[in-house]
Amino acid sequence: MFEARFQTFEEPEGGVALSARLSALREELGRRKLTGFVVPRADQQQNEYVAPSEERLAWLTGFTGSAGLAVVLAQEAAVFVDGRYTLQAAKQVDGKAWTIESLVEPPPESWITAHLKAGDRLGFDPWLHTSAAAERLAQACAKASAELVAVDSNPVDSIWTERPPPPIAPVSVHGPRFSGEAEVAKLGRIRDELAKLGADALVLSDSHAVAWTFNIRGADVAHTPLPLSYALVPKGGRPTVFIDHRKLSNATRDHLEQSADVREPGEMTPQLTALAKAGSSIALDGATAADALSRLITSAGGKPVRGSDPVALLKAVKNPTEIEGTRNAHRRDAVALARFLAWIDREAPKGTLTEIDAVEALETFRRDTGALKDVSFPTIAGTGPNGAIVHYRVTRKSNRRIVPGDLLLIDSGAQYEDGTTDVTRTMAVGAPTIEMRDRFTRVLRGHIAIACAVFPDGTTGAQLDTLARQFLWQAGIDFEHGTGHGVGSYLSVHEGPARISRLGTAPLKRGMILSNEPGYYKTDGFGIRIENLELVTAAEVAGAEKPMNAFETLTFAPIDRRLIDVSMLSAAERDWLNHYHAHVREIVRAQLDDADQRWLDAATAPV
Amino acid sequence: MFEARFQTFEEPEGGVALSARLSALREELGRRKLTGFVVPRADQQQNEYVAPSEERLAWLTGFTGSAGLAVVLAQEAAVFVDGRYTLQAAKQVDGKAWTIESLVEPPPESWITAHLKAGDRLGFDPWLHTSAAAERLAQACAKASAELVAVDSNPVDSIWTERPPPPIAPVSVHGPRFSGEAEVAKLGRIRDELAKLGADALVLSDSHAVAWTFNIRGADVAHTPLPLSYALVPKGGRPTVFIDHRKLSNATRDHLEQSADVREPGEMTPQLTALAKAGSSIALDGATAADALSRLITSAGGKPVRGSDPVALLKAVKNPTEIEGTRNAHRRDAVALARFLAWIDREAPKGTLTEIDAVEALETFRRDTGALKDVSFPTIAGTGPNGAIVHYRVTRKSNRRIVPGDLLLIDSGAQYEDGTTDVTRTMAVGAPTIEMRDRFTRVLRGHIAIACAVFPDGTTGAQLDTLARQFLWQAGIDFEHGTGHGVGSYLSVHEGPARISRLGTAPLKRGMILSNEPGYYKTDGFGIRIENLELVTAAEVAGAEKPMNAFETLTFAPIDRRLIDVSMLSAAERDWLNHYHAHVREIVRAQLDDADQRWLDAATAPV
Repeated sequence: MFEARFQTFEEPEGGVALSARLSALREELGRRKLTGFVVPRADQQQNEYVAPSEERLAWLTGFTGSAGLAVVLAQEAAVFVDGRYTLQAAKQVDGKAWTIESLVEPPPESWITAHLKAGDRLGFDPWLHTSAAAERLAQACAKASAELVAVDSNPVDSIWTERPPPPIAPVSVHGPRFSGEAEVAKLGRIRDELAKLGADALVLSDSHAVAWTFNIRGADVAHTPLPLSYALVPKGGRPTVFIDHRKLSNATRDHLEQSADVREPGEMTPQLTALAKAGSSIALDGATAADALSRLITSAGGKPVRGSDPVALLKAVKNPTEIEGTRNAHRRDAVALARFLAWIDREAPKGTLTEIDAVEALETFRRDTGALKDVSFPTIAGTGPNGAIVHYRVTRKSNRRIVPGDLLLIDSGAQYEDGTTDVTRTMAVGAPTIEMRDRFTRVLRGHIAIACAVFPDGTTGAQLDTLARQFLWQAGIDFEHGTGHGVGSYLSVHEGPARISRLGTAPLKRGMILSNEPGYYKTDGFGIRIENLELVTAAEVAGAEKPMNAFETLTFAPIDRRLIDVSMLSAAERDWLNHYHAHVREIVRAQLDDADQRWLDAATAPV
Repeated sequence: MFEARFQTFEEPEGGVALSARLSALREELGRRKLTGFVVPRADQQQNEYVAPSEERLAWLTGFTGSAGLAVVLAQEAAVFVDGRYTLQAAKQVDGKAWTIESLVEPPPESWITAHLKAGDRLGFDPWLHTSAAAERLAQACAKASAELVAVDSNPVDSIWTERPPPPIAPVSVHGPRFSGEAEVAKLGRIRDELAKLGADALVLSDSHAVAWTFNIRGADVAHTPLPLSYALVPKGGRPTVFIDHRKLSNATRDHLEQSADVREPGEMTPQLTALAKAGSSIALDGATAADALSRLITSAGGKPVRGSDPVALLKAVKNPTEIEGTRNAHRRDAVALARFLAWIDREAPKGTLTEIDAVEALETFRRDTGALKDVSFPTIAGTGPNGAIVHYRVTRKSNRRIVPGDLLLIDSGAQYEDGTTDVTRTMAVGAPTIEMRDRFTRVLRGHIAIACAVFPDGTTGAQLDTLARQFLWQAGIDFEHGTGHGVGSYLSVHEGPARISRLGTAPLKRGMILSNEPGYYKTDGFGIRIENLELVTAAEVAGAEKPMNAFETLTFAPIDRRLIDVSMLSAAERDWLNHYHAHVREIVRAQLDDADQRWLDAATAPV
């Protein structure tokens, strides 16, 4: 009945005999007179989801996590992972050939310095590292009197005989109905930014930036409608989009050629070289541009200007069409969510459902809307202790039965052409404990404090983050992740530059969409998270002495009343909850069947 | 009856004919082949209060503000001031000779670049600028193809015939009863920090750091018991304190010589040069060390290591003796404050008192404690519209009569040998308006939110700042200063590195003392601020999952109940206020006369 098409539940393969690959790489390094080589989990654009052709780290080591790095030396080899992946890496990686090391504190650079000898030559592929990362590697080598060597071609690719080809998924036009602004207008605004930077041209090294600027979408990686591509925008004259022509229909190509020249990806290097030879200063996005681009510009006599991509900020501020689109996407999503939550509430107490059943059902309800393009990330469905694993992803092996007494945490999202959603609800299965209700209510109060915040124009996410934590702190508890991230418009569900976090230094601007997702995780016990998306809007405050902003909540799904200790809420918090639930009812009730309507009425009754 | 001995009310002199001084300086620059010269309002240690001998900017320009800079060129001369001082500078500075320019945005460097020509030589005194400031000046010159030239002696001093001598106030020992930690123990901890920095020696370029390390105090500048001095702490062996011997009694000298060699200030340069010649790396405080020190070390072959002074953090974390001392200082101060507030409340409604009367009375009540060493800064007493001027300081000219309908804002502090205080109260004179009560109650709620905050170890002041502002933001208003600053222990009332501000990136550590002073200022209307000092302490939270901290309020003075709209307070906020007032009563009541006791009972009655 239910089915997940956009997510698999296979345990990532591991423990397979990959030692032949490591030996082959070492032989290849010998041929190239390299002492070692660095293999990051990265593609040329530092994308969150990468194409199978870019999974060099997994192919070489067996480790399939979303972040990591391997360093292969003649005698030693290490895989570096963060705290999330320590256990998984130990399972997947052959402990005889590799050691598992820390990715963060200490960083891999410390290991590199300690393990290289004077005169060693450590290779790296400058297409797979940013310049900042390459500089850190170079410093680590220098401390050991060793040398960091940029390779012309990746030695892993030389030995990876069955390497999949790069993806060539069809590209579609993201027309004015959804994008709300023509390419020429966007290019005009980009050129204004270019003038402020004093640069002669801008490289769009981030496919999200290319997709936004030229109003196209693709399907080259999972869960984000990315058309892998580059673009070069000169301060005057036509920009060039570099993209594999096999991805383009005649119509899409015609669309692109209205505002840009279209070239094969291989033509970027000569074109950039020609521009650099004229002595141009060329702006690059420090966060995504490969070090190879800086090297290319420098060696041709140009000047790379590394900074934050001006398109990232333009893209983050949604226009009225995108805002109306995202409102529609959320209203649509709300119906699927209500059907799902009603179904869980009926079925879960029987004790027969599993986490995978929940994932399949939710995707199916979303597909029933007729508009689902993809899930915006693999659904996190964690029941009982699995809910406390912040980045949990269910597999056939980890799959747990949902039983009375559990809390079920479901974090999921959808890609619709008019908007991207991301929502987390935590449901009581059977009777919750006093502790669960106390924790849930503290998380809810933090969520409400963000939802109701009024703040001056120019306020950063760092300034708001504590509002979400204050009630947890009073009980001596906390959550070890940010309160919120930016969300794209039928693009990535994780989008910069703004976020609600102690590290969020970008001002929150009207039109930005951010998640509001405080949580609490009791190790080996249960997980709680309540997540809505929020739109930054102008606040209407009578007598305000300066421009003030506030959030408009975009997500509509019942918050489990059985988990709320109403006596802990202030009158204003109770009002917010009842008002929110009334809004949920208003939006979804008419689109539900009788049984679900009855469920909804109970789930959204005033407290 | 009342008298202020530590504060004067004279309008700073201005408009006097100082043009002869400017001409003399230009002639002197001509003799030295300099095109221009930079005159900052700074001494060699970037102190907040400077000795009269260091007031070169005031002597040359007439401008007496606490921050500013002059640049003198052959044809132009400009005084750079921030927004606080624009009006004052216009009054004090001769507009025919000088232009008034912005100190902040744009910075003086822009003006310098625009006004210098290729080949120009701009002089600066490297003893009066930090290296970071000197680098900004050098870049500004380079942009104009001009040269920044470090002078060997200050040309202003060459023409300043009546320049006062440097201060030589007696130094006293700040014994173990107040300091709580012997010099040798402090030096041991400093050497541990030195080892972490990997430096061979540390220059204490900040007299506060010298005073703390060697447990001495002085009186060389106003309001802070500073003994102007330097010290050099090598990683092994005895440190040297550089101080004018005329400041030292035999006893003080004996005290110092137990842990250090004592030398005249002029001996620092040869000693530092000798150390640098051995190729030593020498740590310098980036915030206070003169550029001259870096130049001296570099030119002798040593390596200056600029960073944050490790002593600043050690000093900020008070030990149990300092904490008990500050508690006693605040209890003593509380009696003076209660007597003052009772007196104001009786006298002010008659409409005859002035701001200066209030300042004199408060200082007198504090002197009555028998323990007052100085006020910790010039008292801010602003009634009516003067209360809205954040850095207001009353003069005979600005002095305003306190009349019914006013709010009176009093921000003041004391230097006692056992601790430094800083407190602000806002009093209603006559009946306050609804607007005043609304604003006051919002400020109070923010103050209480900070006072009651519980936060994980490692939390920064930036993470707490919003708690103080949230209720103001909801009304579309704000205050344009930080929520709190660090406070010293019988040292500066403004002490780093921690502060409660969006810029406060230092973690709040147990033992730190910070002010909690949200406010609201209605231009041309009234000013409100409520300030207590808070001690960072361990929070006792049952079931806490990690170490948590909280604040212990140190300041005890009634908060004007007539300005509180009790209906806006939560039950928890009301409890806090009543509990706080009960505490005030408990601490001061027995030490008041009958009339003041009656006043106190009413002022601290439960709401």
